[in-house]
Amino acid sequence: MQAFVKSRKAPGGDLLSVPEPTPGDGEVKVALRASSICGTDVHIWEWNEWARGRIRRTPMIFGHELSGTVVELGRGVTGLAVGDHVSAETHIADGTCYQCRQGKQHVCANVQVLGVDRDGIFAEFAVLPAANAWKNDPRLDPALASIQEPLGNAVHALLPEDGIEEIAGRDVLVTGAGPIGLLAVLVARTLGARRVVATEVNPLRIALARKMGADRVIDPSAGAEAARAAVLEETEGRGADVAVEMSGHPASLALALDTLTPGGRVSLLGLFDRAATIELDSAVIFRAARVHGIFGRRMFSTWQQVRGLLGKPEFREKMGEIITHRVPIRDLPRAMELIESRQAAKVSLEPRW
Amino acid sequence: MQAFVKSRKAPGGDLLSVPEPTPGDGEVKVALRASSICGTDVHIWEWNEWARGRIRRTPMIFGHELSGTVVELGRGVTGLAVGDHVSAETHIADGTCYQCRQGKQHVCANVQVLGVDRDGIFAEFAVLPAANAWKNDPRLDPALASIQEPLGNAVHALLPEDGIEEIAGRDVLVTGAGPIGLLAVLVARTLGARRVVATEVNPLRIALARKMGADRVIDPSAGAEAARAAVLEETEGRGADVAVEMSGHPASLALALDTLTPGGRVSLLGLFDRAATIELDSAVIFRAARVHGIFGRRMFSTWQQVRGLLGKPEFREKMGEIITHRVPIRDLPRAMELIESRQAAKVSLEPRW
Amino acid sequence: MQAFVKSRKAPGGDLLSVPEPTPGDGEVKVALRASSICGTDVHIWEWNEWARGRIRRTPMIFGHELSGTVVELGRGVTGLAVGDHVSAETHIADGTCYQCRQGKQHVCANVQVLGVDRDGIFAEFAVLPAANAWKNDPRLDPALASIQEPLGNAVHALLPEDGIEEIAGRDVLVTGAGPIGLLAVLVARTLGARRVVATEVNPLRIALARKMGADRVIDPSAGAEAARAAVLEETEGRGADVAVEMSGHPASLALALDTLTPGGRVSLLGLFDRAATIELDSAVIFRAARVHGIFGRRMFSTWQQVRGLLGKPEFREKMGEIITHRVPIRDLPRAMELIESRQAAKVSLEPRW
Amino acid sequence: MQAFVKSRKAPGGDLLSVPEPTPGDGEVKVALRASSICGTDVHIWEWNEWARGRIRRTPMIFGHELSGTVVELGRGVTGLAVGDHVSAETHIADGTCYQCRQGKQHVCANVQVLGVDRDGIFAEFAVLPAANAWKNDPRLDPALASIQEPLGNAVHALLPEDGIEEIAGRDVLVTGAGPIGLLAVLVARTLGARRVVATEVNPLRIALARKMGADRVIDPSAGAEAARAAVLEETEGRGADVAVEMSGHPASLALALDTLTPGGRVSLLGLFDRAATIELDSAVIFRAARVHGIFGRRMFSTWQQVRGLLGKPEFREKMGEIITHRVPIRDLPRAMELIESRQAAKVSLEPRW
Repeated sequence: MQAFVKSRKAPGGDLLSVPEPTPGDGEVKVALRASSICGTDVHIWEWNEWARGRIRRTPMIFGHELSGTVVELGRGVTGLAVGDHVSAETHIADGTCYQCRQGKQHVCANVQVLGVDRDGIFAEFAVLPAANAWKNDPRLDPALASIQEPLGNAVHALLPEDGIEEIAGRDVLVTGAGPIGLLAVLVARTLGARRVVATEVNPLRIALARKMGADRVIDPSAGAEAARAAVLEETEGRGADVAVEMSGHPASLALALDTLTPGGRVSLLGLFDRAATIELDSAVIFRAARVHGIFGRRMFSTWQQVRGLLGKPEFREKMGEIITHRVPIRDLPRAMELIESRQAAKVSLEPRW
Repeated sequence: MQAFVKSRKAPGGDLLSVPEPTPGDGEVKVALRASSICGTDVHIWEWNEWARGRIRRTPMIFGHELSGTVVELGRGVTGLAVGDHVSAETHIADGTCYQCRQGKQHVCANVQVLGVDRDGIFAEFAVLPAANAWKNDPRLDPALASIQEPLGNAVHALLPEDGIEEIAGRDVLVTGAGPIGLLAVLVARTLGARRVVATEVNPLRIALARKMGADRVIDPSAGAEAARAAVLEETEGRGADVAVEMSGHPASLALALDTLTPGGRVSLLGLFDRAATIELDSAVIFRAARVHGIFGRRMFSTWQQVRGLLGKPEFREKMGEIITHRVPIRDLPRAMELIESRQAAKVSLEPRW
Repeated sequence: MQAFVKSRKAPGGDLLSVPEPTPGDGEVKVALRASSICGTDVHIWEWNEWARGRIRRTPMIFGHELSGTVVELGRGVTGLAVGDHVSAETHIADGTCYQCRQGKQHVCANVQVLGVDRDGIFAEFAVLPAANAWKNDPRLDPALASIQEPLGNAVHALLPEDGIEEIAGRDVLVTGAGPIGLLAVLVARTLGARRVVATEVNPLRIALARKMGADRVIDPSAGAEAARAAVLEETEGRGADVAVEMSGHPASLALALDTLTPGGRVSLLGLFDRAATIELDSAVIFRAARVHGIFGRRMFSTWQQVRGLLGKPEFREKMGEIITHRVPIRDLPRAMELIESRQAAKVSLEPRW
Repeated sequence: MQAFVKSRKAPGGDLLSVPEPTPGDGEVKVALRASSICGTDVHIWEWNEWARGRIRRTPMIFGHELSGTVVELGRGVTGLAVGDHVSAETHIADGTCYQCRQGKQHVCANVQVLGVDRDGIFAEFAVLPAANAWKNDPRLDPALASIQEPLGNAVHALLPEDGIEEIAGRDVLVTGAGPIGLLAVLVARTLGARRVVATEVNPLRIALARKMGADRVIDPSAGAEAARAAVLEETEGRGADVAVEMSGHPASLALALDTLTPGGRVSLLGLFDRAATIELDSAVIFRAARVHGIFGRRMFSTWQQVRGLLGKPEFREKMGEIITHRVPIRDLPRAMELIESRQAAKVSLEPRW
């Protein structure tokens, strides 16, 4: 079969002919219907510092955002059938560690990631544990089905636990309007947020954030004080109830903490790459802030929430606007360029080899 | 001023000229901009069994769903100003009982209800504790502002606590599509429910339930088994995640419990008037069901959620369709007839005396 | 090996010599170190109405409360080793149903129960899914280790979800002081309840309830009004915050609901065998009560809580007092008599054949 | 009456004769039965940087940890009577801000603090809002009653919300064993923690931490790596589930984050005085950590939890050991010295002038 392989510990990737994989015990084999490119894939392509420190295994097929069809079941698989339309939860939990035994598979101590720790899905066929296959409505557009995983990130960032205030009626700040930030704007708007404010510098993303329903998009290059004043203006002077930090920029984090209403909460998803300096007394302790590190999606409560959102036609329509480009997967190098040059928001890949 | 007064312990009510009220310590006086009729008002009007057992004080001005303007502040009031547009949380908590001290004012052990235990708001002016006045966006249609309280009931029934699953992605059953049931359908749909199924026998309400976004409206007069089959069909055979019982009919409760997915939850809001018989083993214990009695609204988390929903234009538009009649308050007797004959869903009252 | 087998659909059970079982994929084989008798086992022994309706398979080894040592691993088992000391979570979840995928294995739609749906553990050896084996501290007394499952029921009844008030500072009513009720008294006391009140008629259990730390034990045979007054007296007139119903008696349920503080919660664990009649308006709706059906234990949050409690020497000591008899398993018929005649609270079984 | 007054913006304080205060609307006047010294009082006494930036009003009576008897009621006070034994919730919420209206008075946007923003309680008599008076069991030792507020801090740090895992069965790390840290050790132990590990350098506090039930007390002066290894050793290699940071030392925070189990939570209570540097990617995001800023106590859920703990005789006994000195309040200067020289843990003040 054809597959994109990270052959060497160096930038780029190769379109190669490789053997089809065979599903092991408890695994399924799927045929690719659509994929899409995540920031992680770009890091692996560029072979940046994170990738050099994290990727241990080459050659390896990369990619992980998946819409596919089950074509073969491994031994002992129940609850799935050949022909089912599925997407992949990329984080493979071991099921036996302390975290998994407490119902927190999303923070499995021994997590393995598709396309990072083992062969991924930029290929005609892929295998994954049956437990990681999420059954889709067969009528769902494969391009949207493939983007469920970042959508799950957005939902998880907004609703990190069951025991938490709902979004309805709350003011939400989204710092950074890349694909996941854009999805967070759309989800917050859909779930009844009172005001949704985003920050972003890129014009394409600013326009998309508005389309997703942001009441205001702040360009932080105008200065910290202006950004702060804008958030307070939109929130009746009291600050946001919920902030989701998607940019990894220290200034965005400072804005999020500085404009949080007392007792509010911040979800951190964007990676910072370096240590951040925080005024804990004023920004966290006296403010009684709650800070959530966000990793992955809850298995599978988040996916069920995603399912509900995708059931709304107007949600699907808006979500589709984030896909600025649809390209054949054989043109992956060009797709990477579109993202690196910030011409694209989300790029969908079609299984044309 | 003019006011509708329950003068005697008998059916009906009288439009009388009475002295304007004066706000006491911590109270505000408001001028009526709009009101609406709640089932409780109908009970008081009809002087049914509930009213005879519950109403201790006559003469008393009744009515409690309010949109008004603050015209005078009592001693010690802060946080409100003359001219503010407000609605009323009808349940007056004492603030000192065990429940209030634990942040559960909505279950105050000594609650007093406007228009039930003390003078209400079917009048040109009314007084209420400042703590019970909820500030509205001045641009909000007074007719909608007045209906925030039943909307709060619907939201509270769907989201009775913070520590609870969100509605997004869940299947919701609403038994009984009176005004609060209709609002529950609309709220569940707005918050991203996967499927919303309602039960109702009245054709007007069936049509409205569809307009509010119900995927299916079941007429329970077709029999319990057909109703059960319909719910299971809509929920992929597993039953609803969340049921809100708005009808007070034993058969609806049986349907709700019988079609609940294991571990699901049921909110009870409709009053039953008599003891109900429940198969606790199969319907509650083995099913690990969670049953919530719903009374009032959380003060004021629910109101804040309501504020968020009312901020969505499409929500306001749909909500407006529930108001089938707008009549001058002087025609209250006719308005009562419209409701009693089931020609109306929600009746809005305009301050024309 | 020797095993107690339900050979026929009739009262009693037989000590027979049967082949040793072999662990299948993902299963482990354990050697029995201790067991104990659950009410379910008594039902099966007596072949009462519940057993006749529920048990489909004979011959079948019954029993499920287990302390054992792993002696063999089936294919694909990780996280366990030969020699590990384990107890069994008796409820075998399928891992693929809607409930399991939402992290609620304890309400698995296709649950199978050890010793009820498949061979249990009143035997020299037993097999169970590795996922159902809970590793014990090897220094833990096997008799206590075997009672972790009913202890888990007690903990689960007191703390049915994460999103719930803690027990510390709350008033707790436990209706029915059989083994699980006694454990509930002990757990509530240990977790810092303000007052713990129990109801019970049996003198042995009344004495044990006091030993477990109940502030007051009410004998309900003195009448409903006296019981009600006693609960209110112990709770400063406001009623219990948390009631756990362990008896299955309608009068106990009525007491629990009738003396619940507004907004309080009731957990139902005792089976009622028939439909119960409840005044929903006054007892549930106006009271804003929350009713939880309790089935099994959360996998495995509850077990982790149990682990913490068992780490306290004074807890273990008190828990040990509930074991009124320790008998060789070959004397199972005599052990059943001890329970049926109410001479025993909890009977521990030693692996002497 | 006699009172300790911060007369000037300079170190120290003066024992002066001042007029007795009169309770205003909604306030009560109490006679002092016992007080105790909080770190905040020491800051005000020493007139350190925090005090210079925070205290705006002199002369002012300071002190806030209170056990007293109600001697007079202001206008409109209900729910309290002359003769009631009370303690004070020091944080005076305005009741009208956004936070207060959402049931989060403990993060009131306009909070005023007794003995910081207005006259406190190092005096024969004090006035406070009736809503801030917490009724005590009259049999409770006044010295313990006065320490309920820091005990509430400890409880709030361990249980910051309802929607959170219980402590039972969890591993808890307490960094810093000053009075609140010591109380946190005791509370965690009481609520069924599996392991409680503390860090502390002061020998007196180390000994007290052991008495409170810490399984291990780590002296961090032995180095970060040794401390880290010790925490992992005590937690079966997986790290603590819950860490409460009471020291304000960056190294302690680093230890807490670095040894947190994935998905665990950290409460920050100790003040840092300067910005801290945190590796957000590894310590918070990939770890899915939850960080809670802790300020005050929940009104009054935390107080109710405190009440439950104080109902346990063995808890009161241990708590009493934290009071290393009981001195007449006229000797406040000497009491301050005992604390500054680290000879004392908690100092109780008796109303002898």
